Amino acid sequence: MRTSIATVSLSGSLTEKLTAASRAGFDGVEIFENDLLASPLTPEEIRARCADLGLSIDLYQPMRDIEALPEEEFARALRRARHKFELMGRLGADTVLVCSSVSPHALDDDALAAEQLSRLAGLAEDHGVRVAYEALAWGRHISTYDHAWQVVRSADHPALGTCLDSFHILSRGSDPKGIEDIPGEKIFFLQLADAPLLAMDVLQWSRHYRCFPGQGGFDVAGLVRHVLRAGYRGPLSLEVFNDVFRQSEAGPTAVDARRSLLTLQETVGLAAPPAPAPPTGIAFAELVTPDAAPVSAVLGALGFTRTARHRGKPVDLWQHGEARVLVNTGPAERRDGTRLAAVGLESPDPAGAARRAEALLAPVLPRRRAPGDAELEAVAAPDGTELFFCATGRSPLPDWRADFEDVAPAPHDGGPWRVDHLSLAQPWHQFDEAALFHRSVLGLRPQESVDVADPYGLLRSRAVSTDDGAVRIALTVGPAPTDDTAHAQHLALATDDVVAAARRYREAGGPLLPIPANYYDDLAARFEFADGELETYRELGILYDRDAHGTFRHCYTHTVGRVFFELVQRDGGYRGYGAANAPVRLAAQHAVRAFTAG
Amino acid sequence: MRTSIATVSLSGSLTEKLTAASRAGFDGVEIFENDLLASPLTPEEIRARCADLGLSIDLYQPMRDIEALPEEEFARALRRARHKFELMGRLGADTVLVCSSVSPHALDDDALAAEQLSRLAGLAEDHGVRVAYEALAWGRHISTYDHAWQVVRSADHPALGTCLDSFHILSRGSDPKGIEDIPGEKIFFLQLADAPLLAMDVLQWSRHYRCFPGQGGFDVAGLVRHVLRAGYRGPLSLEVFNDVFRQSEAGPTAVDARRSLLTLQETVGLAAPPAPAPPTGIAFAELVTPDAAPVSAVLGALGFTRTARHRGKPVDLWQHGEARVLVNTGPAERRDGTRLAAVGLESPDPAGAARRAEALLAPVLPRRRAPGDAELEAVAAPDGTELFFCATGRSPLPDWRADFEDVAPAPHDGGPWRVDHLSLAQPWHQFDEAALFHRSVLGLRPQESVDVADPYGLLRSRAVSTDDGAVRIALTVGPAPTDDTAHAQHLALATDDVVAAARRYREAGGPLLPIPANYYDDLAARFEFADGELETYRELGILYDRDAHGTFRHCYTHTVGRVFFELVQRDGGYRGYGAANAPVRLAAQHAVRAFTAG
Repeated sequence: MRTSIATVSLSGSLTEKLTAASRAGFDGVEIFENDLLASPLTPEEIRARCADLGLSIDLYQPMRDIEALPEEEFARALRRARHKFELMGRLGADTVLVCSSVSPHALDDDALAAEQLSRLAGLAEDHGVRVAYEALAWGRHISTYDHAWQVVRSADHPALGTCLDSFHILSRGSDPKGIEDIPGEKIFFLQLADAPLLAMDVLQWSRHYRCFPGQGGFDVAGLVRHVLRAGYRGPLSLEVFNDVFRQSEAGPTAVDARRSLLTLQETVGLAAPPAPAPPTGIAFAELVTPDAAPVSAVLGALGFTRTARHRGKPVDLWQHGEARVLVNTGPAERRDGTRLAAVGLESPDPAGAARRAEALLAPVLPRRRAPGDAELEAVAAPDGTELFFCATGRSPLPDWRADFEDVAPAPHDGGPWRVDHLSLAQPWHQFDEAALFHRSVLGLRPQESVDVADPYGLLRSRAVSTDDGAVRIALTVGPAPTDDTAHAQHLALATDDVVAAARRYREAGGPLLPIPANYYDDLAARFEFADGELETYRELGILYDRDAHGTFRHCYTHTVGRVFFELVQRDGGYRGYGAANAPVRLAAQHAVRAFTAG
Repeated sequence: MRTSIATVSLSGSLTEKLTAASRAGFDGVEIFENDLLASPLTPEEIRARCADLGLSIDLYQPMRDIEALPEEEFARALRRARHKFELMGRLGADTVLVCSSVSPHALDDDALAAEQLSRLAGLAEDHGVRVAYEALAWGRHISTYDHAWQVVRSADHPALGTCLDSFHILSRGSDPKGIEDIPGEKIFFLQLADAPLLAMDVLQWSRHYRCFPGQGGFDVAGLVRHVLRAGYRGPLSLEVFNDVFRQSEAGPTAVDARRSLLTLQETVGLAAPPAPAPPTGIAFAELVTPDAAPVSAVLGALGFTRTARHRGKPVDLWQHGEARVLVNTGPAERRDGTRLAAVGLESPDPAGAARRAEALLAPVLPRRRAPGDAELEAVAAPDGTELFFCATGRSPLPDWRADFEDVAPAPHDGGPWRVDHLSLAQPWHQFDEAALFHRSVLGLRPQESVDVADPYGLLRSRAVSTDDGAVRIALTVGPAPTDDTAHAQHLALATDDVVAAARRYREAGGPLLPIPANYYDDLAARFEFADGELETYRELGILYDRDAHGTFRHCYTHTVGRVFFELVQRDGGYRGYGAANAPVRLAAQHAVRAFTAG
């Protein structure tokens, strides 16, 4: 099916919006009236621009407050409509959206509404235009899709059909099953949007918080299935009003939008990209740094051993059990200080995973960085993190370690260490995109978003993971766009004895993040501990949490560049990330920073 | 009455919060538990710090989920409480806030709630602590203030009273009159917060959107009157959870907070700062610029005459009817490019206005900038704009024009020009503060906030004005903190013939902002015009709006630095600012900028 996007979903001038929609691969656009009014291009020029870009103009929108009016007002509305139909002729658009009236003058009279819509459709037909009538969720008298359809049916005009909008239908809790009772050829248009499940005024919700399908809480795919069963064959079109998208660059937003639609199309059986192959573990995490010494010192104190070195590049492999960290001091990577730049994901099918990512519009990275390097499959995440699909030790698949030369045997002491999770700070405008990317491209499952109080603003965190917890990534975002690159990333290392690990780290000279004594007094009030247990945590700066399944103990190294390490011990199936302790941890990190700066 | 503020209302570390509260003149604080947990200071050190800063600790908060529990859980809650009472002893705090339970284990049993609260109060009394029990608006079984009071009354323990919170009471639409039935000595604490009137989940509303009294839509003063009539004599304390304040510096937020309380105290008769003396007109607007030529060229083309020059500084006075513009090229003012830096407000009582501003914590500026200058009363607005209280031509009061030397007679042609309004871009974190400042300090009336779609994000605009429209200031804010200084300021000049004014400006070589032809096609669809009228607007780039009272025609110059001029003609009592045309105007300004930059 053809795909389309409303210009109101993207930021910038009309020209910028059209260009972004075309580059992301959409087939058409809905043109929002205000975008046309504000454009210096004439309707004919807009038509030509769309043709050049390979875009059809699928909808002109919206007309408002037309039906069920006193005759004199309806005459004025028809006069306005005639102007707009003439404009659409110049534009080459053949379908117009008419929203159900919110006018205080509108009468609660379905027969009058049908009669006037039929007259409007007659005028439209004279101009070669079709009218798609849609129920706004906050329409004055007509606010449900089935009511709008009844009026359209009784108007019974060939140039009049209905427009369905997933937001207006699902936000009211209407049952979308009844859509199947509408003849497909009378569904003139389908607009899709998702939204987070918020209890708020529906108009504000609609105007500010819509998001692309798969980014919110609605069952948009279920609705689309009903529409397809009804026989609809028009475009799938995204109409999303969102305050964040308004501030974002149109290009990336359009890509995010089309990835959402592709995922939706796959879900309902309209598209078949290569099947997902969810990762089964973290092969490695790669840090880039202008100076390997500080990071190496932390890794050494944590008990990691430098086991190998890249044959062609200044990249060291540090290892501790199954936890592997690459430290890269290559010249191209040194600009932004120490940061987490790449993640190796164990993949059951590296090539398939990369093909799926490519089909879902992820930028594919070169398979070979230098002659002689192993051929590795890699793509870029929305935040720029490089994701390598790895087959560690699974010959005959290429092994990323083939590029490395051993310099020391892997250590055997220290217990079964592995990467528990990674935390990646997301660009402010791409938080929802990141969650959708990790779900649709990688096959990870997003958890609920959590707000965490930082001393200088609320942070938002959302984990994506495999069901078995083998891969866990926490996506975080700051309170405002200014903070994009300021926030820390971190690498959490799982051990089966966090007390021993913390003690050894400290004895090796590594400073652990100091946690205030007041925190431990509060722990004593909240939980009962074995003799001496709390004193040990207090001594080492170990934080404690408990959920219905088990316990979580964790502590933190200091920060190098943007990166710090966490030592964690999960017991009894604890599922979280210690979010309850995050305010104390963040305040402690601010205090260290202020102390270091002061 | 004493004033207090909850540490959760301010950003930063506990030390930063306490310092800000003290500097703003608060008498005490509520200490939010998480602020204490995250602080490296011991309770004894916090107590000493507060004493040094002249702050009492009026409340420790909150305890949660204590009452109406199964006995075993209540025993655990009592154990937690004992720890907290001991902590309060170290802290020197004698009142603790207990919120009504939200626990799924809480029973719907008022008798049990009263019995357990009484036992809790007994334990508290042993530690010299009083328990203030408050109904959360989303409490599981107890969610209204009168219900909480019934439980407290039936518990009947001297160490148990109630805490009233204006948000929890007014957000539920409870009638606050019943507060007068509570004996004043049983109201242990009063927390004040306002909030915008939003239809949304009350918990989210409370946690993210509270604001200081006078910044939202609640009748907080009315509630306080009831509490005073009940006999309450404790502190007036602000408890505000707000996502913007979380990101703002604690110092200015604390000042904003106390100004809010001072205004509230004045409203209910607890404080008597000098009475407001609302301005009666705009005496002048002052532009500072590194180069007078571009601004002077615009003013000249608009028909302004340079009539006078400051005796001691490089400041020119330009005049057109009653519209006066100062152009300042003084060295100290040239850093930020051309901007609107000061406004002269005609004041019936300049000295009184300045004393009121000072009493409401506005920074007072030196009355005399240089020896020999006239003594002028001036204060700084939250955005840094200097506000002069003027008595133009009202001897024997000092006249700001005394510092100027005439260089040309004022022109007599061109009709009755005056400043219609000013638009001032506000720092992102201070939008609500700015509206409150202009209301409380200057006596202007805030209008509703309006969201305006800019191609790159929603702008918010809120006008403050005198009832007769003699002074109108539009406060605007961008979509995100990054945009603080990027947005334009403007000066709107009222004329009685905008067509003639625009034509003359263009003939004098001044380029008017080009408005797209599509806009005029739409006007033709929306309104009927006299023959040739629309063609004139189209030719000149004049925008058109109409409200229930009259019509508004307006056009724009190009932008110099951050400043542009608007020519406006109001007819028939039109009250707005042409907000319906703002998206088209903003898009046109972006297009000009892109063209100039490209």
